Amino acid sequence: MSTERDVKTLHPKDFWQMVRRGEWRQPTIEPCAAYQKAGVCIIPKDYAVAFMTYCHRNPQPLPIIDITDVGCPHPTISPEADLRTDLPKYNIFRDGEFVEEVTDIKSLWSDDLVGFLMGCGVPLDAVLLQAGIDFVSPHALHISNIATKPAGRFGGPMAVAPRLFKNSRDIVRAIVLSSRMPFAHGTPVHIGDPSAIGIENIYRGAIKSVPEPLTASPLPLIPVWWGCGCTLELAAKDVKMPLMITQSPAHMLVTDVRPHELMDV
Amino acid sequence: MSTERDVKTLHPKDFWQMVRRGEWRQPTIEPCAAYQKAGVCIIPKDYAVAFMTYCHRNPQPLPIIDITDVGCPHPTISPEADLRTDLPKYNIFRDGEFVEEVTDIKSLWSDDLVGFLMGCGVPLDAVLLQAGIDFVSPHALHISNIATKPAGRFGGPMAVAPRLFKNSRDIVRAIVLSSRMPFAHGTPVHIGDPSAIGIENIYRGAIKSVPEPLTASPLPLIPVWWGCGCTLELAAKDVKMPLMITQSPAHMLVTDVRPHELMDV
Repeated sequence: MSTERDVKTLHPKDFWQMVRRGEWRQPTIEPCAAYQKAGVCIIPKDYAVAFMTYCHRNPQPLPIIDITDVGCPHPTISPEADLRTDLPKYNIFRDGEFVEEVTDIKSLWSDDLVGFLMGCGVPLDAVLLQAGIDFVSPHALHISNIATKPAGRFGGPMAVAPRLFKNSRDIVRAIVLSSRMPFAHGTPVHIGDPSAIGIENIYRGAIKSVPEPLTASPLPLIPVWWGCGCTLELAAKDVKMPLMITQSPAHMLVTDVRPHELMDV
Repeated sequence: MSTERDVKTLHPKDFWQMVRRGEWRQPTIEPCAAYQKAGVCIIPKDYAVAFMTYCHRNPQPLPIIDITDVGCPHPTISPEADLRTDLPKYNIFRDGEFVEEVTDIKSLWSDDLVGFLMGCGVPLDAVLLQAGIDFVSPHALHISNIATKPAGRFGGPMAVAPRLFKNSRDIVRAIVLSSRMPFAHGTPVHIGDPSAIGIENIYRGAIKSVPEPLTASPLPLIPVWWGCGCTLELAAKDVKMPLMITQSPAHMLVTDVRPHELMDV
């Protein structure tokens, strides 16, 4: 049986097999630590133009890593992965509303679906830690009052996630490093005062939160806010697509490319 | 009457008026020097998913700056510009073949067209010059043997454009600077030997060329190759879209955003 240490160093191909056998239904932050993780959004092709336009206009919350050919369940960047089976858990939305969580989407797949791989912030956390930058992540996702740029019927407020820093020097370094990682949501959308973007309590997120405020640092911490992929779920409410499939929160696809392989442009 | 100095410092809004009045039918490299120029590609919406996927997979030759709403002739980043009238010259393609050059596309516009603004290399030239990097541009565009990543029926070889440098230090600085400018084609696709990417003569391009080899430098110059937007014209040959409209070469749209306004992600 795999220990946590084992899954961190697993190759993605072996991890996909584990998921296919039903042996991994947990979040995918830890497994295959060296590889890019990706959110997934699968929608009917009739909505793809507006969706791609919406993402292109809002690259900080919604960076597209990869687009499948219409009807093809295999990502272009990881052709041996299968979007129908290789995520531990999926969320199914109909007409913009969450209806159920499932462990595969084989029976839902059809020739008119397009799969999008969406960037996520995990690789930036790793880079900040490697740079020796001290930060706290409250693991709380918030709905800001920053309006996204609409496209078709896609639109609405931007979901954001804070990281808390101790000083300006660390913030400057974090911004520079994040600017080099567009697929980890790129640069922040706001620095400092939560109320300026409509947020009351950093520690009590709308989407996910830790039970109580962190008190580890004796210094006041400065929040810096990055766009968050949950923006998509908010936008989809009004679009009412007959079907939208995403990863369950934190249950992202593990790809077999390294974050820096996506950075050569 | 405007002198060349005048057009360099014109505001884009005044330049668009000049073009609408038929007073500017020349290339747009010089006018409104501080503003982003963009190639334009206008296609029927039925081809938009495959086109956007193709561009996403090949961001070096084909960086998308902006996408219009379906049927809307105004770029999102420059809503007062009009894609039907504000380019000095347009190329019209039918079934993948060039058919004519026109000075406006008012009679061709329809509600099912989507306009794409494509990046161009002009802002990188300005940044390299400002950095004191000595380089020569042979103004020759070549068809390399580098295969683009296909999407739908879009595919084929990558068009490339060289810049020639005197030493490694300048090349390193040029690559670092270009990596910060994804809309100016980002990083190079090849360094050095033209024959390694299927090119016989740097100075005799397939698409456009200067009449004779440059001999200004006593040193051997090292070519560095960037992706080029002409890749699109090559890819469109096989797709045979009923209509594709692009800018005439070097007759790009002048936007009213500065290159660095596009860089905040």
